[in-house]
Parts: sequence; structure tokens; C-alpha cells
Amino acid sequence: MNRPRPVEYGDASAEVRAVFDDIRAERKVADVSNFWKYLAGDPALLKRTWETQKAVLAPGALDHLVKEMIYLAVSVTNGCSYGIACHTALARKAGMTDAVFGELMSVIGMANQTNRFADGFRLPIDDVFNE
Amino acid sequence: MNRPRPVEYGDASAEVRAVFDDIRAERKVADVSNFWKYLAGDPALLKRTWETQKAVLAPGALDHLVKEMIYLAVSVTNGCSYGIACHTALARKAGMTDAVFGELMSVIGMANQTNRFADGFRLPIDDVFNE
Amino acid sequence: MNRPRPVEYGDASAEVRAVFDDIRAERKVADVSNFWKYLAGDPALLKRTWETQKAVLAPGALDHLVKEMIYLAVSVTNGCSYGIACHTALARKAGMTDAVFGELMSVIGMANQTNRFADGFRLPIDDVFNE
Amino acid sequence: MNRPRPVEYGDASAEVRAVFDDIRAERKVADVSNFWKYLAGDPALLKRTWETQKAVLAPGALDHLVKEMIYLAVSVTNGCSYGIACHTALARKAGMTDAVFGELMSVIGMANQTNRFADGFRLPIDDVFNE
Amino acid sequence: MNRPRPVEYGDASAEVRAVFDDIRAERKVADVSNFWKYLAGDPALLKRTWETQKAVLAPGALDHLVKEMIYLAVSVTNGCSYGIACHTALARKAGMTDAVFGELMSVIGMANQTNRFADGFRLPIDDVFNE
Amino acid sequence: MNRPRPVEYGDASAEVRAVFDDIRAERKVADVSNFWKYLAGDPALLKRTWETQKAVLAPGALDHLVKEMIYLAVSVTNGCSYGIACHTALARKAGMTDAVFGELMSVIGMANQTNRFADGFRLPIDDVFNE
Repeated sequence: MNRPRPVEYGDASAEVRAVFDDIRAERKVADVSNFWKYLAGDPALLKRTWETQKAVLAPGALDHLVKEMIYLAVSVTNGCSYGIACHTALARKAGMTDAVFGELMSVIGMANQTNRFADGFRLPIDDVFNE
Repeated sequence: MNRPRPVEYGDASAEVRAVFDDIRAERKVADVSNFWKYLAGDPALLKRTWETQKAVLAPGALDHLVKEMIYLAVSVTNGCSYGIACHTALARKAGMTDAVFGELMSVIGMANQTNRFADGFRLPIDDVFNE
Repeated sequence: MNRPRPVEYGDASAEVRAVFDDIRAERKVADVSNFWKYLAGDPALLKRTWETQKAVLAPGALDHLVKEMIYLAVSVTNGCSYGIACHTALARKAGMTDAVFGELMSVIGMANQTNRFADGFRLPIDDVFNE
Repeated sequence: MNRPRPVEYGDASAEVRAVFDDIRAERKVADVSNFWKYLAGDPALLKRTWETQKAVLAPGALDHLVKEMIYLAVSVTNGCSYGIACHTALARKAGMTDAVFGELMSVIGMANQTNRFADGFRLPIDDVFNE
Repeated sequence: MNRPRPVEYGDASAEVRAVFDDIRAERKVADVSNFWKYLAGDPALLKRTWETQKAVLAPGALDHLVKEMIYLAVSVTNGCSYGIACHTALARKAGMTDAVFGELMSVIGMANQTNRFADGFRLPIDDVFNE
Repeated sequence: MNRPRPVEYGDASAEVRAVFDDIRAERKVADVSNFWKYLAGDPALLKRTWETQKAVLAPGALDHLVKEMIYLAVSVTNGCSYGIACHTALARKAGMTDAVFGELMSVIGMANQTNRFADGFRLPIDDVFNE
């Protein structure tokens, strides 16, 4: 078996079910997404990742939509198709409109462009940025 | 001359000075940053890049601090040291507190981690994300 | 013809067949994988790449499974779906168990996360690391 | 203050000191590295990251040197200079010889090269890799 | 609606149609590619991107085939499947032969390999490169 | 010793000297660059890398300046500071003017931008690109 396989709820150990139950309660969804079903192949990895994600995405100084847009900006920059699909959907759910999506893509694109200019022109960092 | 050199205002052509003047007025700064001084080696590139940046960072559906944080998220993901230094400073100026910075880094780190899990486990995209 | 096409054994030149034969003998496989069939469009590139790979993956100071896991870690970090599929299979063949796969993904994910923290927090390198 | 600053032990809160003490005990070092001092600007991020790292690098199915080499392979592929410096030192400490380092770099370089061939030639994944 | 949707000519606003018409005239094609149809979801982004691309790909100091090959080299290095497919086709149209494609891939692969060696061996930059 | 060290000609083995001599003759330089001095820590890696580079950069279907610009485009996209410095110098030596450099950076920047749009908008590949 070369390709990893998902773990469905019915086949899961008690340890994995406990995590799935927590995700379903927290996210208010009937079933967990493939991300969690595949990570469940390693129950310790599943548990650690869910606990980190729950803490990081909890209400705090940044609101939820902003966090999802940052997640999406990283996923686009990494060219990660699953991350892009998943966090576009989660950002939509958190209120991302078409206008916001267009501006988000504009900033992501411009940042990727100017990052390359900065490296290609071998820019010394301005003193003020180092204060 | 292997290494690109900056163009200082005093040595700039009228075309370059016009762009520098617009940046200084728009950004309310006494002098432009190295980014613009180096791009000025190609006046057409300087002008295009400034016009794009002015349009993309103008007030719109997303507020200015959010745009700077997205810019920073991309720069960190690309490992671009100039972009990180510059957009940390610009985000600070736009109101990024220590607490916001910590949460921003937490989301960026987590997204880079889970992007790799998504690719490494070869996750099929859930139907709901494709709707 | 925009998309590159594979070269099958029956259609290959003597030069390409010699490389294919060496791969089949070395790897103990009936047919070479798509990687080699597509590179065969440039026989010199095919030959150079195979000779490098044979030398690099030969028994040495690192055992074969470790080399395959490193190959996989790079492929995941680059988000290269072919490399991920191919080197998961080769690592499985070399003895990678489910437990090893889970730990490997855990390290890859954590490293991608902490690399971004290192860049985002603009860490100076500790003196001891430069000795 | 644009640039993040390190938190030294003497200035740290009890929460941060507890993490620093655990790192010093676990790693048998007199002082923690810059990585931990900078993350301490966000105590929750510091604690989460240390707990994950402690769990992921603990003895398991993979030995410690292999984990450090995988960490290094990711850091090199991301071009993260701090990660490269840090994990070269940790791999050395865990027994990486000059011969192992040379082979490790050889595999990393080859993988980065062939990943690009796989994408550039638009390789379809072989059926056997999907089993 | 999670997944972005294309804007077809028949459903487009006057503003979007004007850009599509310009692309069709400039590129001498009956219909624009998916790239433009999707960007049209944000008319300002569509217009800016097309104007930049028209300026950047216009005849200048570099000939058109070289520009397309550079575009392809970037797309391969980013692992962007759409960019690879699109710019392979455009480079073919601009005269890229099989022999040129093979050499191009060889250089891209080698550069990706030696970039990692440069970072992994932590090379100091030679004085002559900084002149 | 954590940090790799260069091998100078006077301290090199006969095997390493033979490679250094070949580089000096081929490149018409008095001394080899740091790249080769550091790789010499693993003589087999040094030899393989030089032989590949000599073959790939030899006169062929692409001229030397184009190959150096492609090398530079990859190095900028990877954010590899050594590769950027080295291949800017080599491209200058091969005839890259200021105007060419500006156009090259413009194409690299635009490609990095549009690659992200392609991924972010989740573009399906046009049929014509798959022919």
C-alpha cells in the first residue's frame, strides 16, 4: 500500500474518535474533512495538529476571517491545492465576499512579485526597518 | 559592475523623480526606501510597480493593516528578508501590536505545516470545497 | 505538440535503450517509470540524470531507506506530486512502515513551521552554530 | 520597535521561565538558543512550539540523527539560513560525519533537481505509485 | 460558491469585454484563455494584469522566445501546473524546438540543484560578485 | 566544527586539484569560486557537479547568455542569495546590459505574480495547452 488511506469514523479507535468528535462539535459539521481522516493514520499527529489548530484559530487579537485569509495567502504562495480549496471555503464561510477575494489575490500576487524584485536587486535593508 | 546600485533623488531623471515625488506624497515620507531606489535603474519597471502597488494598497474592501499582514505572510513564506523587514515596519505603522504579531506568526507557521501534511498525505479535495 | 510525450522502449534509440536496460537491471523492474520515459526526449539529459542518481543512491554512509526519506522530505517541501508519489513507493519498498511514515511527516511539518518562525522573527544565528 | 527582540531568562515571566527550564533540562544546555528567546515574545506560541518539538523529536520509530537530517533537508529546500545553521549543528552533535553530510547534500540537491524535471515534463503518476 | 468561476465573453461587462477584445487583437486568438476569464471576476485586477503583461512581453531588449522561456523557468521552479502548461505552449508557438526544451529543462534542474548546495554549504559570496 | 569549510588549492588532494584545474582552464579564471571550494569537501560530489555543469552550460541550442539568465531566474525565484550574486556576475560577463537586466527582472516578477493567481483562482488548464 503506497498511497495513504483515510480513517473513517466507523473504523476509528477510541483515541481517534475523541478527536473527530471534538472537531465536529467545535466546527459544527456532521463529518470531518479529509485532512483529519488522513492524519488519523498517526493518532498522535492527529491529536497534536488539532490541538494546535484549535488554539491558533481561537478568537483572539485577530478575527477569524483575517486568520482564514492569512491561511489562504500562505497556501497560495506554497501552491498547495488542498490548502487553497479548504481555506477558500472556510474564508467564504467566515464572510469573504467576491470583492474581498479579489483584493486578497491582488495583494498576494503583488507581494510574490515584489519579493522577487527585492531578492533580484539584492536590496540592503533600510536602517529604519531594523530599529 | 555586477551588483545593482540605487538611484538617489539628486541623480534621478525627471521621469524617476516624478515617481519618487508621488511616493513621498502618498506615503508621507521624506525619502523613498531602497526598494524604489533600486527599481529606478529601470524607470518603466519603477513606474509600473508603483502604480500597481498604489492601486492594490488603496482603501477598499480590506483595511490597510490586513493588507500589510497578508503582505508579511507571503514574505515570510517566501523567506524574503527585505520583504519581512519592510512589511513588519509598515504593519507596525498601521497598528500591528505585539499580540497581533504573535497570532499572525502562529497562523503562518501552522499553515506552512499543514500545507505539507496535505501534500505529503496526498489528500483528495473534499467535494464541498469544489462547489 | 505542446505537452511532452514519453518514449517507449520499442520506439527508443540504441542510446536510450542502453540507459533503460541499465535502470531495469539495477532496479530489478520490468519497465522503467514515467520519469525516465519522459526524460528520454533528451537522451543526454536522460543519461546524465540516471548516472547521477545511480551514484547518489548507491550504498554509502547513509542507508537506502534514509536516502528515500530525505528524497520524500524534499518532494513534500516542494509540493511536487510526482516526487511524493514515487518516493513514497520507493521508501515503502525500502522498508518504511506506517509508524515511520507518521514520524517522517511530523518532522517535515514541524520543520516547515519553524523555518517560517525563524524567518518571521528575523533570528540572528547563535555563535555556537557558526563555529 | 520594528524588529522582534529576544527575551532573556532574567527578564522572563514565570510562564516563559518554566519552558526555558524544561528546554535546558531536556537538551542539557546552559542557555536556550535564539529560536526560543524570540518566540518567547508570545508565551503561548513558545509553549505550543516546544511541546510539539519535544514530542516530535522524542525517541520513536526513527532515530534522532535521521530526524535531524530530515529537518536539515527541509531547511535547505526552504533556503532558511537559521534552520540550516541550527540543524547542521544538532545533526553534528547527533553524529553526522563529513561523509554523511556530503551524501545528505547530494540527495537533497538531486531531489530538488528531479522535482523540477517531474513538474517541467508534466509527468503522469505511474499506476503502481497510486496503489 | 467556494470555487472561483470564469466570466465568459457573453456575460461580461463592457469594461471586461474591452480587455478581452484587446487580448484577442494583440494575441491574434479567437478566445482568451482561462487565466483571463477567471481574473475577470475582479475587473480592476484583470485590467492591471493585462496592461502589465502587455508591457512586459512587448518587443524590447530581450526577444519573445527568451521571455517565454524565463516565464517557463519560473513556473517550473514554483511548481505551478497552469503556468507550466500555458508557457510551454506559448514558447512552442514562439519557436521552442525539442532540443531547446531539453536544454532549458537541463539548466532549470541544475540551477535548482546548485541553489540548494549554495544554501546547504552556507557559501560566503565571493568579493568579485559584490563589485 | 559545525560550519562547512572551503578547500583551498594548496590543501587539496590530487583528485580535487584535477577538477579545480579543469574549471580554471574552462572558465579562464585564476582561482575557482567559493562554490567549488566548499563542494570539494566531498570530492565525488564536486566532480559530478562540475561535469554536469560543464555539459549543461556547453554551447548548444541555447546561447550562453540565455542559459545564465535562466539560471538567474531560478535563483531569484528560490531566493538563493549566492546563486543570484554569482549568476548576475556571469550573465554580466556574457553580455547582460542594464536594459536586459531590467526586462529580465520584469518577466521574473510578473511570472511569480501570475503563478499565484493561477493557483489562487484554481484555473483549469485550457485544452489547447494539453495537445
